Amino acid sequence: MDIEQFRKEGYKAIVKICDYYYALRESKIPVIPPVEPGWLRPLLADSAPQQGEDFAVIAEDYKKHIVPGYTPWQHPSFFAYFPTGFSFEGLIGDIFASAASNPGFNWTASPSCTELEIIVMDWAAQMLGLDRSFYNASGVGGGCLQNTASDAALITIVAARRNYTNRHPEVKLEDLVIYVSTQTHSLGLKAALILGLQIRALPVKAEDNFSLRGSTVREALEEDTKAGKRPFILIATVGTTSSGAIDNLPEIKEVAKDYPDLKIHWGLTNFDSSAMWVRDRRYLTEALDITPPFLRTPQGEAGTVIEFRNWHLGLGRRYRSVKLWFILRGFGVEGFQAHIRKGIALNRSFIEYVNKSPLFKIVAPPAFSLTVFRLDPKPQTPSDSIASEQTLNELNQIFYGRINARKDIILTQTKLNDTFCIRFAVGSRYTEEEHIKQAFDVLTQEANLTLEAWRQREVGAG
Amino acid sequence: MDIEQFRKEGYKAIVKICDYYYALRESKIPVIPPVEPGWLRPLLADSAPQQGEDFAVIAEDYKKHIVPGYTPWQHPSFFAYFPTGFSFEGLIGDIFASAASNPGFNWTASPSCTELEIIVMDWAAQMLGLDRSFYNASGVGGGCLQNTASDAALITIVAARRNYTNRHPEVKLEDLVIYVSTQTHSLGLKAALILGLQIRALPVKAEDNFSLRGSTVREALEEDTKAGKRPFILIATVGTTSSGAIDNLPEIKEVAKDYPDLKIHWGLTNFDSSAMWVRDRRYLTEALDITPPFLRTPQGEAGTVIEFRNWHLGLGRRYRSVKLWFILRGFGVEGFQAHIRKGIALNRSFIEYVNKSPLFKIVAPPAFSLTVFRLDPKPQTPSDSIASEQTLNELNQIFYGRINARKDIILTQTKLNDTFCIRFAVGSRYTEEEHIKQAFDVLTQEANLTLEAWRQREVGAG
Repeated sequence: MDIEQFRKEGYKAIVKICDYYYALRESKIPVIPPVEPGWLRPLLADSAPQQGEDFAVIAEDYKKHIVPGYTPWQHPSFFAYFPTGFSFEGLIGDIFASAASNPGFNWTASPSCTELEIIVMDWAAQMLGLDRSFYNASGVGGGCLQNTASDAALITIVAARRNYTNRHPEVKLEDLVIYVSTQTHSLGLKAALILGLQIRALPVKAEDNFSLRGSTVREALEEDTKAGKRPFILIATVGTTSSGAIDNLPEIKEVAKDYPDLKIHWGLTNFDSSAMWVRDRRYLTEALDITPPFLRTPQGEAGTVIEFRNWHLGLGRRYRSVKLWFILRGFGVEGFQAHIRKGIALNRSFIEYVNKSPLFKIVAPPAFSLTVFRLDPKPQTPSDSIASEQTLNELNQIFYGRINARKDIILTQTKLNDTFCIRFAVGSRYTEEEHIKQAFDVLTQEANLTLEAWRQREVGAG
Repeated sequence: MDIEQFRKEGYKAIVKICDYYYALRESKIPVIPPVEPGWLRPLLADSAPQQGEDFAVIAEDYKKHIVPGYTPWQHPSFFAYFPTGFSFEGLIGDIFASAASNPGFNWTASPSCTELEIIVMDWAAQMLGLDRSFYNASGVGGGCLQNTASDAALITIVAARRNYTNRHPEVKLEDLVIYVSTQTHSLGLKAALILGLQIRALPVKAEDNFSLRGSTVREALEEDTKAGKRPFILIATVGTTSSGAIDNLPEIKEVAKDYPDLKIHWGLTNFDSSAMWVRDRRYLTEALDITPPFLRTPQGEAGTVIEFRNWHLGLGRRYRSVKLWFILRGFGVEGFQAHIRKGIALNRSFIEYVNKSPLFKIVAPPAFSLTVFRLDPKPQTPSDSIASEQTLNELNQIFYGRINARKDIILTQTKLNDTFCIRFAVGSRYTEEEHIKQAFDVLTQEANLTLEAWRQREVGAG
């Protein structure tokens, strides 16, 4: 494809995307794609063609075979996981980033990629109200964009381990322990698997709203220290995935004072989950700096530039700052606030429906734009078996199975301690009050059908 | 930005990219950006704006302040590192991927993202002539797209470590050793840093063309095994970064027969360095599978689909298969072959210039489209100090410093054992015979100036 062909096909791509988002906004695309595992292979060729094909043909196949198999995370009725961020400003940023096609691992490999990231991460830190010590401009701390939150957690653990083993070179890797809570995102467990280290998931209680308490941390530390183990990092979370719980940081910090070797890492769940800030960048570079001869540059040797390759796992890195820059400027601080407030307001509408309904109960206090609830109807007779905890779990699994079978709504399940429950996460840009109402109507309808079947089964069994 | 604004700004982005590539093709953009560390901060605002800005203003700033700071890896005179792959087909793939904005960690999270990756990785495996056991269709082996080659190496080491410690649960992590050669890409050293494991870089010789030999591996294994160490993986390379050397795989495989615990990983340096294939996907999933309740899906539980989140480090993953699909179809197998052959042919022209010149010598046999050479002139008198090895290194560092100061060409340095040398890597789509000639003329000119200054210094000193 030459430059003029690109101009033509590029325009056509823009048109296709506009059409797609109009259809999405009007819910003309189903939120669950109508496909089954393995559907795609028979529709495509068995191998790459010998000669290149006309791009118009390829683009037509894309529209016909690939697009229908997308799960549209921006659909107004998408309430699963956490809806991903999307904006047209970000898309244009991605277009320019892909056109620059740059691995940006060194300042020299592309000055703009590094410098823009340095600047926009400071903008974002300021917008989030972080202390100035986290700014790149501080010269000591700093922020950068990681691939995913999993990468950020893994890197932080690697830096903490390096710092710990530097101070305690006699310690065996086998004795190191990572602390998380049972509510920490699976990124904690995965990092432990990758690093081959022990991990301990500390319990949380429903009456604490699934928040990790200082006393729990202290008990574990006493027990593990006595047993010769070395807890060296605790991952605390502000907004867990399951229920949006916020760990009790003031209490945990108090405990950590008595255990100076324990470092606390906060997982800031925000608009761009891969944003990472540190108070002292040397923790990263001391753990991750590798500079073979072919990566030496005058600017790097002079120490006048940040070399982001030493802040992350790989060497090459995606150019994401242009996207963040476009979004920050296009939305402005108030635009971000409005987006977040809209999600919270829509979630509040959902909570009102739940609270007014005799069918559902909220399991954890609503956090941000996430509600965790379950089917928990008032017993109809004193002997109604639905009153027991065990049957409630079973009932909710059937209820979730029914929701899962529908094609017009998507939600995800979770477990809070032993309670099976359902997550309702608001965040798509196209979700409005009407979609919350529709979603609640669907949930009510399925709840009634679930209960009806359950009670008929009970009657049959009795 | 609403859909209609996106249409307008999207068109304008396409126009800007076309303008940029016309300018690039004609070398109207310098290959070294005319900027100094820190130049960007004073040009941008101190913080994100309070209210959103008009995108036309933002896009204007992008063109004025950001674009001039790019190092254009697609420039015809870019001969540094390895030129990155870029094609307009790939760019359109990225546009659609960004528009889908999908973390694709589960089949359910977006069926097309998973299924297309399954299919195109088999296409690519077939094109590269890999054994069928590496195809996803085999049901046992398979391939997927990783972020970078560093990720692929790290994952492979994690899988090998897990497999080893499963079989030898008594072994301490402290005793495990990763084997690489001194020529292995720094991804080996970085993986060892991340995992906190020992690494041993085995020596290679110039007379073996910097290829790792079986006898070297055997000696190291005998020594380490006697010392109670546990070498569990060897990273062998087909096409090293420094010189394009190919490790002696037949010999290494013979040695490995006597050490069944040692697994060999090949680093296939090809058009998409993040492509990874394994003969048995269970090595990956056994090491990386984490499935919290909120990620359970009927298709995942049924085992009828590949869940790529268990094949890599993070959870969310970029949607890259659409890009690969467009490129494979747009170029066809012959298009790929033509691109590779063109790079090799241009490199051959460069080699001819070098061989005819009395100034330069080739240090390692040219591999693929990479030549490693250095300034090594015929002595002009019997006492010419340039004849000695040490002064040659010094001379070449000065020579490279001069090239590095130029704004019209970019090459990278390397060291092969103790020999300081210069890499010339061809790969940009816009590089033609004339740019090779230009580059060689620049090198000759700088070489003569380097020698002139050197000899004057010698005269002055003598």
